[in-house]
Amino acid sequence: MTDTIGVAMLGYAFMGKAHSRAFHDVRLLDPPLQPELVSISGRNRERVEEARGRYGWTEAVTDWHEQVSDPRIGLFDNGGPNSLHAEPTVEAARNGKHVLCEKPLGRDAEESHTMWRAAEDAGVVHMCGFNYRFVPAIRRACELIESGALGEIAHFRARYLQSWGWDAPTDVWRFDRAQAGTGALGDLGAHIVDLARYLCGEVAAVAATVRSYVEGHEVDDAFVATVEFANGAIGTLESSRLALGRVNQNTFELNGSRGSIAFDLERFDELLVSDGGAYRSERVTGDWWPPGHGLGWGDTFTLEVRLLLEAIAGGGSVAPHGATFEDGYRAAEVCDAILRSEESGKKEVLEYR
Amino acid sequence: MTDTIGVAMLGYAFMGKAHSRAFHDVRLLDPPLQPELVSISGRNRERVEEARGRYGWTEAVTDWHEQVSDPRIGLFDNGGPNSLHAEPTVEAARNGKHVLCEKPLGRDAEESHTMWRAAEDAGVVHMCGFNYRFVPAIRRACELIESGALGEIAHFRARYLQSWGWDAPTDVWRFDRAQAGTGALGDLGAHIVDLARYLCGEVAAVAATVRSYVEGHEVDDAFVATVEFANGAIGTLESSRLALGRVNQNTFELNGSRGSIAFDLERFDELLVSDGGAYRSERVTGDWWPPGHGLGWGDTFTLEVRLLLEAIAGGGSVAPHGATFEDGYRAAEVCDAILRSEESGKKEVLEYR
Amino acid sequence: MTDTIGVAMLGYAFMGKAHSRAFHDVRLLDPPLQPELVSISGRNRERVEEARGRYGWTEAVTDWHEQVSDPRIGLFDNGGPNSLHAEPTVEAARNGKHVLCEKPLGRDAEESHTMWRAAEDAGVVHMCGFNYRFVPAIRRACELIESGALGEIAHFRARYLQSWGWDAPTDVWRFDRAQAGTGALGDLGAHIVDLARYLCGEVAAVAATVRSYVEGHEVDDAFVATVEFANGAIGTLESSRLALGRVNQNTFELNGSRGSIAFDLERFDELLVSDGGAYRSERVTGDWWPPGHGLGWGDTFTLEVRLLLEAIAGGGSVAPHGATFEDGYRAAEVCDAILRSEESGKKEVLEYR
Amino acid sequence: MTDTIGVAMLGYAFMGKAHSRAFHDVRLLDPPLQPELVSISGRNRERVEEARGRYGWTEAVTDWHEQVSDPRIGLFDNGGPNSLHAEPTVEAARNGKHVLCEKPLGRDAEESHTMWRAAEDAGVVHMCGFNYRFVPAIRRACELIESGALGEIAHFRARYLQSWGWDAPTDVWRFDRAQAGTGALGDLGAHIVDLARYLCGEVAAVAATVRSYVEGHEVDDAFVATVEFANGAIGTLESSRLALGRVNQNTFELNGSRGSIAFDLERFDELLVSDGGAYRSERVTGDWWPPGHGLGWGDTFTLEVRLLLEAIAGGGSVAPHGATFEDGYRAAEVCDAILRSEESGKKEVLEYR
Repeated sequence: MTDTIGVAMLGYAFMGKAHSRAFHDVRLLDPPLQPELVSISGRNRERVEEARGRYGWTEAVTDWHEQVSDPRIGLFDNGGPNSLHAEPTVEAARNGKHVLCEKPLGRDAEESHTMWRAAEDAGVVHMCGFNYRFVPAIRRACELIESGALGEIAHFRARYLQSWGWDAPTDVWRFDRAQAGTGALGDLGAHIVDLARYLCGEVAAVAATVRSYVEGHEVDDAFVATVEFANGAIGTLESSRLALGRVNQNTFELNGSRGSIAFDLERFDELLVSDGGAYRSERVTGDWWPPGHGLGWGDTFTLEVRLLLEAIAGGGSVAPHGATFEDGYRAAEVCDAILRSEESGKKEVLEYR
Repeated sequence: MTDTIGVAMLGYAFMGKAHSRAFHDVRLLDPPLQPELVSISGRNRERVEEARGRYGWTEAVTDWHEQVSDPRIGLFDNGGPNSLHAEPTVEAARNGKHVLCEKPLGRDAEESHTMWRAAEDAGVVHMCGFNYRFVPAIRRACELIESGALGEIAHFRARYLQSWGWDAPTDVWRFDRAQAGTGALGDLGAHIVDLARYLCGEVAAVAATVRSYVEGHEVDDAFVATVEFANGAIGTLESSRLALGRVNQNTFELNGSRGSIAFDLERFDELLVSDGGAYRSERVTGDWWPPGHGLGWGDTFTLEVRLLLEAIAGGGSVAPHGATFEDGYRAAEVCDAILRSEESGKKEVLEYR
Repeated sequence: MTDTIGVAMLGYAFMGKAHSRAFHDVRLLDPPLQPELVSISGRNRERVEEARGRYGWTEAVTDWHEQVSDPRIGLFDNGGPNSLHAEPTVEAARNGKHVLCEKPLGRDAEESHTMWRAAEDAGVVHMCGFNYRFVPAIRRACELIESGALGEIAHFRARYLQSWGWDAPTDVWRFDRAQAGTGALGDLGAHIVDLARYLCGEVAAVAATVRSYVEGHEVDDAFVATVEFANGAIGTLESSRLALGRVNQNTFELNGSRGSIAFDLERFDELLVSDGGAYRSERVTGDWWPPGHGLGWGDTFTLEVRLLLEAIAGGGSVAPHGATFEDGYRAAEVCDAILRSEESGKKEVLEYR
Repeated sequence: MTDTIGVAMLGYAFMGKAHSRAFHDVRLLDPPLQPELVSISGRNRERVEEARGRYGWTEAVTDWHEQVSDPRIGLFDNGGPNSLHAEPTVEAARNGKHVLCEKPLGRDAEESHTMWRAAEDAGVVHMCGFNYRFVPAIRRACELIESGALGEIAHFRARYLQSWGWDAPTDVWRFDRAQAGTGALGDLGAHIVDLARYLCGEVAAVAATVRSYVEGHEVDDAFVATVEFANGAIGTLESSRLALGRVNQNTFELNGSRGSIAFDLERFDELLVSDGGAYRSERVTGDWWPPGHGLGWGDTFTLEVRLLLEAIAGGGSVAPHGATFEDGYRAAEVCDAILRSEESGKKEVLEYR
């Protein structure tokens, strides 16, 4: 008999749906702990109730305080707006719940650091929802780098481009500074900052330009940055919500002294690999299905949740392949430095606490 | 309260896993009938029991006869080897169960026709598991064609290429004539024959060469065919298990008098669309997630099963977007004609019963 | 001092321009014989005179008979309409001129055979203008195959697709049976038949469907064919002038027992190469410029002409990398068999004279 | 009768070959002035003599002073090493010769400015050899932008990546500071800086990191930069000679408020164009040949030279589609600012003289 763990979820919208499906699907992946979907919360009574029914949660509540103190709950999953990340997550951790929080962890490095320390002090397992680490091709990229097959890393370049920003209603929460903190930076940039750190190592300095183009947007629409890594590699990072022609392009390339890799989310199952010569196009589809039968974007969350359950069951950490709250905090430091560089007009050297 | 339907599944291997996951996941797609996973069957007691536990079926049995007469069962799903498609499916239908059967429907047109007539005579809903119809980009292709946007169709070319045949152990059932019927033809070719019919209409004639290259293979490793459609279009079809460099490439292109479309399974989320001029690369990711966040191969089965449950609930058919047993039979006629053409050295005109 | 050779050209339109440029440019490639551009001919006095001036020919004439008996001429180059290929070329050869003739060699195998025998009997060097053999990536493909790196060949598939046929004026000579012989078959199909023979070896049998879709076209707009090679490989060939979205797509793939290659003219500098695993994308740009600095379509003619001049200077043949008149004849036999198969509804076995 | 112009060329290596071929080939493009290839110069007597013969120059000299004062010369073309760009070019201009100089114009902005002013003061036509402006797809990109079809420009990102730097002998002049000035920056970066200016307008500020990785290299191997344009757009620029897997990748993307374009030199004939929605892949092959029959890298020089001859014949300038010495100077200011930013750790605002 497999042990179970009670799960509570904050948020019923985009991430609420993605995480609910992950807890549902992970049951087929033979997890060491079977998740029991105890409760889902949200401010809108009607909508959270509908989500409860659709996604198979036992209860729907409108106050997350009920969740973080609920003795049935072993794992608190926060998929709410950025402004609601810190307080509930910290409180859940202090109550001994393991915690999963969507990215960006906090709205800035300060808030993120608080969350990390709270989780660490409480001794719970913590995970920040950088789901792209669970794309099979990206995991394979990480393994290639760690194997030394690419040699010393010289360059890392990444961009995350979407295009919905020109025409979107300006009253969505993602354009509101109080709720979102930042725009393309925290929403898209945080993902590629995390991938940069996951694949290339710690960021040492950044120089950046951050811009808002569309009237009514309180947050940034786009940023561009140069980046220097602790290992000596240099690179570029950029994100935009205004890149017409690109619906959801998350792409990177890494060049080492012995080889290179390149990935584009629009070709989910493909990793370009050079061992010094021409790129070859490897199909990387994971081990759910026979070779060449690929996963989908939503499945990255299922793999993420499986790793979290394994870490909880094993009493360990989701590192190195899962992102911890420390990873969430460190990504936030980089994002903050990008904003500071826009203010100062200088290269900003990272100082981690 | 949603009504429920009891499901029985024959087969616990590749397709057993894919279908089990589909019945599990479809619950999140608000189906009109909630599937209850009553029983799974297979000849190997130990393995079927393990599959039961892993995929969430209530019971495991080793004799499908128990399933087809089980009063708790409303839907019989056959994902077993090709040689086990006909008898259990026919019996289930005769017992009033709705039926889903993997492709190829039967091992030849004769067997497939029997299955179709049995299901039709029994008045049950029947579906043949041509899951690629449920790739969002392929559904979009169908809609474009039906809208008239491409004009009159002149050409359709498709190929389905894999490469595992050179090195695979020769004792797997897929190389055995008694169990598999045919090789690349029924396994891969049936899929593209179905897509040809789905997108371009009824096949009128074929001329083909069918070959086995690897010693110890009783069935074909590859075939090539020209095809003439009832609507006047001409094209080529080919499949191989010996195409090194191609892991699972299922690709087609259709040219009409006003536009064209092209698809490649290796770029699951992309449909190339020409309205007469240059191809544009449309991201087609369905409506589960925001635009640009794609599905996976396994999700095609979930969409397939949802359509089946809708047809059962609505008392109708899975046509035109789902494949019926008639579609399974007609695809088998084309496959048989391909084999006859290899024998005769002539173009074989299709005659449907 | 380099020896010189006097050249006469028939035709001043598309091929006249391409060949004139080749004789002009080849001077920079250190040829063993320097071409002297003596005369260009065409029926339209004004146009041929204009071409003379533009392309640097010394004389313009309206009667090719003047050229084939001109003692200054050592090489006769026929780039006229298909109906003017045989007579002038044969007469030139009989007068001891080396001959270059555009493809298709004759309008059918009979005419092509006559041309081949005449050139052979006259003991002159003969070349048929299958210029795609001179794309660096295709030459590299040939070398890979000859090296044995791909093992035994199992499949060859090629298509040559254009789209200008729907809207072109119906009075151009390419749609006229008397002048053109065939349509997409001789114009585009001949190229891929030659590549099939160049890369995969002799064709043993074909089965084909040939169609004309557009009113007013006396010749075929498209054909599809299966092909069996003498070495046991099977494949498909197709060409169309009605493939909207494709401007000039000449693409092939070859699968062997140890590896595969794939090429697309729309990616002129790229050869996909599999040594059994994933395709790698090799940049193949020839040796004119540093690696990665590519040639253009027109440069294939320059390389073609260089090989011809080398063969003339060396007293040899343009084989195996250049196409001889025998290659032109054999391609014509395949094209004729494709037409016969459309008539007979059968697979047509090739019989070469 | 067409007028002629005497041409002298400095340099017989890579650029000497490329320019010689351009002057040879331009004769077929009906130029308003026919170039006469009077003399080619270089320090190595034997090599320059060999180049003379191969490329069709009348004389070979070892002292460029003979060329810049030669009354037969109307156009002086400088394709020598960077350290030999300024003095001969300035002297030629002062002697009233029209001047073409390879990029980078001078080794820094100061030297480049001197060259520009000298040419301007002398009243001669001047052109800096940014040949990529003459790729048909890039010219088309420029026309689309100028037409307003893309709206206001928000982003421009470009990179130029090669990989030969890891293994090249360290004694080639391109790694020597005195001869080359800079490394990847002047060699590759200058090209994309020019394209940035050509397509997106004047550069207002840059922040950059510049690195040398390989022992024995006196110049930079790579740089990364953010860029702000006078029109408000932001972007990234980067170049490297250490990007394994990339032989010669010169790629950019530009996003505007109404559409986007993207180009990759490895797909020479293709321009991706978005009018707000999905990218379509336009074949852009210029007007030498029928649509879909592409040019090569070397042909960009032929088009460049044709424009220069037209400007000389017309008494005008090569602007806006050709790069003037002012363009060469302004690109140099950007490159200098990139180097200053590496030193200062700050964003450097451009100040043009």
